[in-house]
Order: sequence, then structure tokens, then C-alpha cells
Amino acid sequence: METRVGSATKTVLIGGDRPTVLIGERINPTGKKKLAAALRAGNLEIVRREALAQAEAGADILDVNVGAAEVDEVALLPEAVRVVMEAVDAPLSIDSANPAALRAALEVYRRLAPEGKPIVNSVNGEERSLSRVLPLVKEYGTAVIGLTMDEGGILNEAEERVAVAHKIVARAEALGIPREDVIIDCLALTVSTDRRAALVTLETIRRVREEWGVNMTLGASNVSFGLPEREVINGAFLAMAIAAGVTCPIVDAARVRPVVLAVDLLLGRDEYAMRYLRAYRKRRRKATAG
Amino acid sequence: METRVGSATKTVLIGGDRPTVLIGERINPTGKKKLAAALRAGNLEIVRREALAQAEAGADILDVNVGAAEVDEVALLPEAVRVVMEAVDAPLSIDSANPAALRAALEVYRRLAPEGKPIVNSVNGEERSLSRVLPLVKEYGTAVIGLTMDEGGILNEAEERVAVAHKIVARAEALGIPREDVIIDCLALTVSTDRRAALVTLETIRRVREEWGVNMTLGASNVSFGLPEREVINGAFLAMAIAAGVTCPIVDAARVRPVVLAVDLLLGRDEYAMRYLRAYRKRRRKATAG
Repeated sequence: METRVGSATKTVLIGGDRPTVLIGERINPTGKKKLAAALRAGNLEIVRREALAQAEAGADILDVNVGAAEVDEVALLPEAVRVVMEAVDAPLSIDSANPAALRAALEVYRRLAPEGKPIVNSVNGEERSLSRVLPLVKEYGTAVIGLTMDEGGILNEAEERVAVAHKIVARAEALGIPREDVIIDCLALTVSTDRRAALVTLETIRRVREEWGVNMTLGASNVSFGLPEREVINGAFLAMAIAAGVTCPIVDAARVRPVVLAVDLLLGRDEYAMRYLRAYRKRRRKATAG
Repeated sequence: METRVGSATKTVLIGGDRPTVLIGERINPTGKKKLAAALRAGNLEIVRREALAQAEAGADILDVNVGAAEVDEVALLPEAVRVVMEAVDAPLSIDSANPAALRAALEVYRRLAPEGKPIVNSVNGEERSLSRVLPLVKEYGTAVIGLTMDEGGILNEAEERVAVAHKIVARAEALGIPREDVIIDCLALTVSTDRRAALVTLETIRRVREEWGVNMTLGASNVSFGLPEREVINGAFLAMAIAAGVTCPIVDAARVRPVVLAVDLLLGRDEYAMRYLRAYRKRRRKATAG
């Protein structure tokens, strides 16, 4: 199944055995004090620089999240979306739990890219979320990330998460949103506190792929929280998650792109290793120039 | 399914959701000029040092291969086995295509470890191999690695490799060798010259696990031959291969142990991340001491 997203100048196709699409995660103040402070001051210069750096590092789509204490998302999210759209040509994933902020940002996106199509990040299985977010997705003709959690929070069993995925897909289709525009996030918890955390995520991914074949994202880095040498764990987890069915993980592209390119190569999505070798040569040139 | 192998002093259990067992690959002159020259001169000091270094790096079992031009394996393989057994307590994988050399080495192994059980590496689906190697495996009560290739060489399709695995398991069982003593190698070719190379291997692994549940080894590093930054590719491939069913890859333990520990952690085989953290602290102490 293929999801098409786009900016004014660039179309990104997700799925259908294409190379993995990377959604850049870094425009998000969670855990970033400096960015949070800048956003509170209405200063979007860091956002602009992060957009440029992530595009340069090979992110195909950029997530934009300005949610922090004392930030008026309804005012700032559309501004951030405008700044990022002016800086780079990557399509955006507009990331907020606030439907009014999503609507304001979608208006800006539509104005700057009338033929474009962003991702709304996110809806989940809660009735309140489904009934407020999916109509926006329909109205603006976007794709949407569906988190496999509901009123009960994050669920412990793969079967429960698969049921939430099913609910989100069914509700979207009932509103006339095509299934290929729903991107499921099977959610990763921390393996240091729950031995089964990654296994449950991988099992959910496999079952969602088998049952619906929809595209899937994943914020893989949570899995290694609290442990040393997190990149080794995150890289191994991404390899397993992509092999299981994740097609557009949300990541720090500068850190994980080499391993994702290796995974695509191994999964037969990079004939003659052309993408792998091109990225390697680019890193070498940079290392030499720096 | 569980395979037990052992030396005089150490038992290693493979499979049954235990942590991945690493077979150390470095005592093998293929591509190592210095080792090949030493073996031709009958000098086993490098072999002894490699044995110690690999055990220190976390290899659970050591492969011993002395096959090089102008080396008399029948004389040298038992000598090498003796040297390694005197140096380390890891069980061995005795690696030769020469049945007489295997027999001579198995005699030494039996004498030095009467209660032990090595691995014979390897048999394949060729009639000549099956009829010469499996009787030795039966006679000496060893485990055996079965390569999924036959008179036609390495086969291009997963289905063909699965059929060879089936043949090897059936022939072993017909001789009274228990199925759990057969360790299948689904073989990895080079992805830079064949886009499907890794995919076929992964598909074979999944099918062998589903159909027989036997333990599986894999020499994963071939997959990246001819490409730069091979460790990134090898690590990603190992992660996918272990998730698919490989339980005892043959590897350079010093290079890949961190990623394998991360994979075991993610697959729920390392409660409280104890093995992962212990290995991390050991590496840190070494780095500080060095």
C-alpha cells in the first residue's frame, strides 16, 4: 500500500517496497530546554536551523511540534510550519494534540502548498481524539498517524494494539478517508523496565502488516531509554522493525540514516547499493571537508 | 528446540529462547595470509592467541579451521583442536571438508573431553557429503552444521534451500542423529552483486524455523563483501537474521557482540538488561585501563 504526501515542490511516496522514508523528529521541544525556551519567546530561528540540518541529513519528511508549557500552539504551530516550509521542500508531519492548532497549521500548509498533502500527527483510539481529529484529516485531505493507544493509555498486549489499529482504520474509512492515508504507530516502550516491550511492538507491527498492509511509523528511540550506548540498541531495533513492516520511522536522521540505508540494501530496496554508496561518499566528503 | 554442546568443563545450550550463542570465526586461514603461512609451517601459536582473544571477547564456541593450500589437515586439524582445547574451555566447532581430518580431530576431542560434545562443521546436501560426514556425527555423538547447498552449489531460491535443509534433517534422523543436533546454515551471499541475496536468506531462515524449529547458524559477514562500512550492514543483517530465527551465528565476536547483546535485549532474552549492562561495563573498564 502506498501513501503519497507532498509539499509545494516535492512528493514523497511511502510503502510499496520503496526505500524507507525517514520522518525527522528533531523539531520537538520535549526534553530540549533550549528549544522550549526559544518557542516560549516566539523565536523560530532554531526551528529553521533544525529544518535545514535534518533535510541535509536525509530526512524525507519533517515533523513539526511546538508543544511546551506556556506556548500558545494555536498561534505558534502555524508560524513554525510556515518557517519550515520556507526553509526546506520536505513535506511536513504536523504534530499536535490540539485540534485548533492543527487546523490553524493546516490552513497555512494549504495556502503555501495548495497541491501538497501533509501528515497529521496524530489521532489515537480514544473517542475524543477520533471525533475531533479525523474530520480535520478528511476536510484537509491529509494523511494521518494513528497511535495504537486509547482511553487505557498504552496497551500491554499486541492483540489490544492491533484492535486499536483496526478501530482507527475503520473509523477513518467510515469518514471516507482512504486506508492508505492512515499510517499506524505501533508504539515502543522502554525495554529496560519491561522485558517484553520491544517484542510486543514487533508482534503488533507484523500483525498490522499482515492484516491491513498499511504503512507504519515508529518512534524507535524510546526503546533504549535509561541504557548506555543507545544507538546500538536503536539501530538493531530499527532493523528488526523495518524488516517487520515499518515504512516511515520517526527518527534523528543524522544518527540513524546509515543503518536504515543498510537495512534497505539488505531488504532488496537499493539495487547495486547505489543509495548506500552515494550516502557513504557524501559522509566521506563532509568528513574530509570538515 | 535445544542443542547441547560441551567441552570437558563447559556446557553451552543453544536455542529455546536463550541468549544468542556466538561461534567465533577467526581460527580460519581463508583471507588471512599470516595465519595461512603459520599453519603451513606447523606453527599454532597464532591459533592459540586467537582462541584466547575470542573467548575474552565473548565467543561461546570456537570454530577451528586449518584448511589452506599445502596444509595436511589430517595431521594439523587434531593438533589445532588440542592447542585450542588446552587454551580455553569453550566447546569447539571442528571445521573441515575432509572426513579423515574430521575423524582425527574428533578422536582428540573425545580423548581430551570424554563427556564433551563438539560441532562438526559441516555437512551439505550433496550425496557424497551426507554419506561421509553423517556417519561420523553419529559415531562420535556430535552436533552438526548442515549447509543448505548441494551438487548445484548455493541455490538461488529460499524454497530450494529449505528443501536441502529438509533432506539433511531427514538423512540425519534416519541414521539416529536427533533433530536437535542438526544446526542449519541458510547461507548468506553478497548483496552488492545480488539485490535479493539477504532477502532469500531471511526467507529461508523463517521457513526453516516454522517448519522444523531447529537451531540455525549463519556466517553473516559475506553479505557486505565489497561495500564500505561493512559493520553497519553486518550488524543490521544479524539483527534481522536473529529476529528471524538464527540462534548461533558464526562471527567475529569482538566486532559484533555489542549488537547481538542489543538484539537479545530487544527480543526479551535479557531480563533487566543485565547481560547488556555487564558487557558495557566490561568494555568501559578495558577502555579506561587501556
